Amino acid sequence: MAGNTFGTLFRLTTFGESHGVAIGGVIDGFPAGFSIDMEAVQEELDRRKPGQSAIVTQRKESDTVQFLSGIFEGVTTGAPIGFQIINENQKSSDYEHLKEVYRPSHADFTYDKKYGHRDYRGGGRSSARETACRVVAGALAKQFLTEKGIDIFAFVDQVGNIRLSEDDRIDLSETESNPVRCPNADVADKMQVLIREVRKEGDTVGGCIRCIVQGVPVGLGEPVFDKLHADIGKAMLSINAVKGFEYGSGFEAAEMLGSQHNDLLNPDGSTQTNFSGGIQGGISNGETIFFRVAFKPVATLMKDQPSVNNRGEEVIVKGKGRHDACVVPRAVPIVEAMAALTIMDHWLRYKAIN
Amino acid sequence: MAGNTFGTLFRLTTFGESHGVAIGGVIDGFPAGFSIDMEAVQEELDRRKPGQSAIVTQRKESDTVQFLSGIFEGVTTGAPIGFQIINENQKSSDYEHLKEVYRPSHADFTYDKKYGHRDYRGGGRSSARETACRVVAGALAKQFLTEKGIDIFAFVDQVGNIRLSEDDRIDLSETESNPVRCPNADVADKMQVLIREVRKEGDTVGGCIRCIVQGVPVGLGEPVFDKLHADIGKAMLSINAVKGFEYGSGFEAAEMLGSQHNDLLNPDGSTQTNFSGGIQGGISNGETIFFRVAFKPVATLMKDQPSVNNRGEEVIVKGKGRHDACVVPRAVPIVEAMAALTIMDHWLRYKAIN
Amino acid sequence: MAGNTFGTLFRLTTFGESHGVAIGGVIDGFPAGFSIDMEAVQEELDRRKPGQSAIVTQRKESDTVQFLSGIFEGVTTGAPIGFQIINENQKSSDYEHLKEVYRPSHADFTYDKKYGHRDYRGGGRSSARETACRVVAGALAKQFLTEKGIDIFAFVDQVGNIRLSEDDRIDLSETESNPVRCPNADVADKMQVLIREVRKEGDTVGGCIRCIVQGVPVGLGEPVFDKLHADIGKAMLSINAVKGFEYGSGFEAAEMLGSQHNDLLNPDGSTQTNFSGGIQGGISNGETIFFRVAFKPVATLMKDQPSVNNRGEEVIVKGKGRHDACVVPRAVPIVEAMAALTIMDHWLRYKAIN
Amino acid sequence: MAGNTFGTLFRLTTFGESHGVAIGGVIDGFPAGFSIDMEAVQEELDRRKPGQSAIVTQRKESDTVQFLSGIFEGVTTGAPIGFQIINENQKSSDYEHLKEVYRPSHADFTYDKKYGHRDYRGGGRSSARETACRVVAGALAKQFLTEKGIDIFAFVDQVGNIRLSEDDRIDLSETESNPVRCPNADVADKMQVLIREVRKEGDTVGGCIRCIVQGVPVGLGEPVFDKLHADIGKAMLSINAVKGFEYGSGFEAAEMLGSQHNDLLNPDGSTQTNFSGGIQGGISNGETIFFRVAFKPVATLMKDQPSVNNRGEEVIVKGKGRHDACVVPRAVPIVEAMAALTIMDHWLRYKAIN
Repeated sequence: MAGNTFGTLFRLTTFGESHGVAIGGVIDGFPAGFSIDMEAVQEELDRRKPGQSAIVTQRKESDTVQFLSGIFEGVTTGAPIGFQIINENQKSSDYEHLKEVYRPSHADFTYDKKYGHRDYRGGGRSSARETACRVVAGALAKQFLTEKGIDIFAFVDQVGNIRLSEDDRIDLSETESNPVRCPNADVADKMQVLIREVRKEGDTVGGCIRCIVQGVPVGLGEPVFDKLHADIGKAMLSINAVKGFEYGSGFEAAEMLGSQHNDLLNPDGSTQTNFSGGIQGGISNGETIFFRVAFKPVATLMKDQPSVNNRGEEVIVKGKGRHDACVVPRAVPIVEAMAALTIMDHWLRYKAIN
Repeated sequence: MAGNTFGTLFRLTTFGESHGVAIGGVIDGFPAGFSIDMEAVQEELDRRKPGQSAIVTQRKESDTVQFLSGIFEGVTTGAPIGFQIINENQKSSDYEHLKEVYRPSHADFTYDKKYGHRDYRGGGRSSARETACRVVAGALAKQFLTEKGIDIFAFVDQVGNIRLSEDDRIDLSETESNPVRCPNADVADKMQVLIREVRKEGDTVGGCIRCIVQGVPVGLGEPVFDKLHADIGKAMLSINAVKGFEYGSGFEAAEMLGSQHNDLLNPDGSTQTNFSGGIQGGISNGETIFFRVAFKPVATLMKDQPSVNNRGEEVIVKGKGRHDACVVPRAVPIVEAMAALTIMDHWLRYKAIN
Repeated sequence: MAGNTFGTLFRLTTFGESHGVAIGGVIDGFPAGFSIDMEAVQEELDRRKPGQSAIVTQRKESDTVQFLSGIFEGVTTGAPIGFQIINENQKSSDYEHLKEVYRPSHADFTYDKKYGHRDYRGGGRSSARETACRVVAGALAKQFLTEKGIDIFAFVDQVGNIRLSEDDRIDLSETESNPVRCPNADVADKMQVLIREVRKEGDTVGGCIRCIVQGVPVGLGEPVFDKLHADIGKAMLSINAVKGFEYGSGFEAAEMLGSQHNDLLNPDGSTQTNFSGGIQGGISNGETIFFRVAFKPVATLMKDQPSVNNRGEEVIVKGKGRHDACVVPRAVPIVEAMAALTIMDHWLRYKAIN
Repeated sequence: MAGNTFGTLFRLTTFGESHGVAIGGVIDGFPAGFSIDMEAVQEELDRRKPGQSAIVTQRKESDTVQFLSGIFEGVTTGAPIGFQIINENQKSSDYEHLKEVYRPSHADFTYDKKYGHRDYRGGGRSSARETACRVVAGALAKQFLTEKGIDIFAFVDQVGNIRLSEDDRIDLSETESNPVRCPNADVADKMQVLIREVRKEGDTVGGCIRCIVQGVPVGLGEPVFDKLHADIGKAMLSINAVKGFEYGSGFEAAEMLGSQHNDLLNPDGSTQTNFSGGIQGGISNGETIFFRVAFKPVATLMKDQPSVNNRGEEVIVKGKGRHDACVVPRAVPIVEAMAALTIMDHWLRYKAIN
């Protein structure tokens, strides 16, 4: 059973490979009567695309989304929303040498063994190209949620060993004003310096994204298996290069005492601290939801690596193509999109019984 | 839409509250013709139950599982397997004082707001009691997987600030020989000392569990949304008190360079390192799968805490009942169970197309 | 992938064989805060059980349902509702001779080939015994729907060649007052005469059930695949012995002209005729929903039949056990139950977006 | 929760309205390594399209399918297969007068009430145009099944009161050689005469399609809810204008005795008769599967009808546009497509456990 559908009541099914004709998807379950801001959708896509600055990949994709159904006179009809993004600017010849080669820590080996017949160009279906479709659907979900008073903000809080600390001032309005999408200008500078050094070496580096969701009402989440943070975690872990997820106090909670960690209640239902990250017993409690997502360094390096091909022969994988030294800044809109998809799904699940 | 079912082809649906008549579930999709070792199932349950040592809660539950269908003459028939565990040794009076009170960092508040009418006794459906049902189903899945050459081992690798380091020797055969389920006797001692101190203070402490899965063949996992590690992550995050999940290099990958992090391939398809944690592109690559799960300190303390009740009045939550100072050792069989459920599900999903 | 779960937002998962320990299920998604009338549930079960009259099977089952969770102080909590019915009065020795034999037009052959290992006693999982679980869940759904103004009435409108015609007066209050559940006393008498004759011969006969659903608001149904009548049809076809389903004008529509068949609209949205059976484009239009379900004659005869065993040898299947000559009267509460499950599910699906 | 996805392991999600930019879908779960015959897919589409003869609608659509992903060098990769069909030859002005009008027995009223905002042109999402997407996916499924030895043949066996009887000779090779797709030339002639007469009156007439599936192995079907015939029935009932479904002996079984109806077994497992229609206990038994689907007369007439608009005012719906007098011949490939989707899904579900 394949796994290209996300969500239950609000569902996204995607298709498309890096160098195929097009990528796209179907959004099913978007309520009728909602006015779609098409420009805002394109803006989200533009946030994700490559070639935006000197620190990210120079592949130029216009990433223009075309809606094919489900929206009539700018308003949703309740019918499924089909959309596509035509692939362009593929340099398939960049991949000719990889036809039979397994790149280290890529999905080449596993896809070949699992499926047998694979589209090797640009990583095929395993490429992060498909995340553009998630951003389209997430953009629609974000508009819906904003109307319900729910807003989502993600930003880079770590690149390599450069990390936003508790003491660093965070100004969310600065996130989009620098290429690393870090909401603190000084730390952002340090991150850029690191990325440039790494890129010069033909190497890559990992990082972390933190995400904040404000305005979620009490009651979202469906225990015991579809707890809100469990579904958010699955959503994040499905993004390319993600190695870890934590919410609220996260892994730090493992070192804490209950007397330190418990969020005491105020008479109005708010809490005095928020180690819970806005979710208790798997259900939102009205406080700000926040979580962190860890990304490994991208596996494609701009320097040569030893590897093997599909006949077990040793080969050299040459550093070619156009790739990010650090994928994390571009992943910020993807994290926001997956958060939007998950929360909109849970919003509808909640509404079915309230 | 409620969320009490886990899995797609191999499905577990559970029911039951802490102080209800019984807890139990239905396992659907277990292939026919498999001989069930009933004693082994009961042994898994016994690993999970309280009252096993001085460091865990003294609530005595016999936790005897009774199978009601789906197994004929000891062999599965392919029909759904219904089972139940009768609740006993409930001291409902321990909870009388909590009828209208919201305990800090518990699910009392969120359940009350979401559902309106809640069984407050022992935490009701939000209690970790329901994890016994997961262990039953996981025990069956473990037997199935073992026959396919797949084995699952979890153990405690952190309690508070006591942590197994890279240099500590790990002997998995020692896991069950100490109450903290740590596979290194010295570190286990330190952990027990810490837990006793915490318990004496009426406090609680968090920790981490690491899990290893050996023998998974290449090809399990369904990108792009049902990647193997994403489903494992959701499974773990659905366990009570879990705050974080990471696999392979996890959060450490964020600090690494690609040249350090890439797992170079050997001609036979194995890798020289395993930062990938056995999963690449969301699909198993034949290497050992390993991951870590972070647990917060249990919210119920044996000391008084200030809180509020459902009328917004300030109250004192007295430390009563019988609770763990550290829940992590008891969670080891639950982590193994959830890993077994996830991997068996993916094994069947893989088999449908291979 | 097994198929023992029905529904999406309102979900029933059942388990249990005819001669196993118990049958039962889990109802997930029943909204919280609803007062359950336990006696009414037991009454529905009693309507279904055998031994109620001289024309049906004499197997005595008390069919007492026991709820295990999800209902606290008589009110639903939103948690999954587990329930069971202990099997009693099984005469397993009645089936000893069938251990290796395939009864004609039964599921013995197909279950043996599909699963390999089967519980042959009483038909195992293929027995209509599991429909008792559907009636339990349907009884809860009926109470919920009645509160929303939706009522479901099924009755027998055909046994063999005895059929309620257009001219026969129907009084729904008479349905329960005769053993065949036909709402016209005269036709009911003819049906009973036929059934007795058939039973005397050791034979069986088929029939049809018609079902009426009143009070369904406009808007239920989810095109294009989960149209309301398509889900109702699947629900009915899943009942043992069902061979056909039609709604509104049904198969008669094939012979009609559009000018005859169209339901003209009144200014208030009601229709002048109702060949549509209350559903247009797969969505309810506010008119009465009605449909018919065809049942084949039960395959177990009280006379001997030639057959084969699992070694391909010819055998005689002796007429033994206790069986209905006509199963249709007992199926009336099952049809109502499946209608209730389907409509409640669609009611919740509708509510999620309205 | 919307319902635009069909299937579990083999899944089709469709989108698209009659007069939107395009219709299309995503096929997920098609196994990798399969060679697709693209021409055969287009042929199936061509069988469905209008304008093929004087008895069907004259709307000209080229219905050319374009595949966007999932097929590389003509072979499936296991990745989701996205496809689209650009809408052309829409005469949207034909529908301007219907903007606020509810056509009798159409979905206009129910869609307007359910969704509020609807694309009224050509019936929008409720139009049978979307069935072209089902035919595309069904064409792929048919190729897969044919390779497994499973073949599907549907044909018209009734138009109005003209019906193929038991005595009429059926030659499946004649089905495509006449516009009504009836496999008996004489009966086909009578049907065409009737359709022409009806068309001349500006009226429409209903009919029935019978479908035969050969070569299904023993064991497909997942009781108790996803019985093979129940899923086939739901698939058929989801097709526009369908009012009834029966399989095997169907509604006739209601009049039969068990001694007449039972299919006695031969030593090799085959049966002497086949009233079971190839399915027993919801599982295929290796015999030919056959079923009938009843279609109502199309609601759009070429003569005027009285109706109301969305303000409750009485209006006249003029007979305009280009419509079929009898939709049944064009529905034959749709019935085959839905049968293929259902059986392929069950084939994969079966394979997961065998």
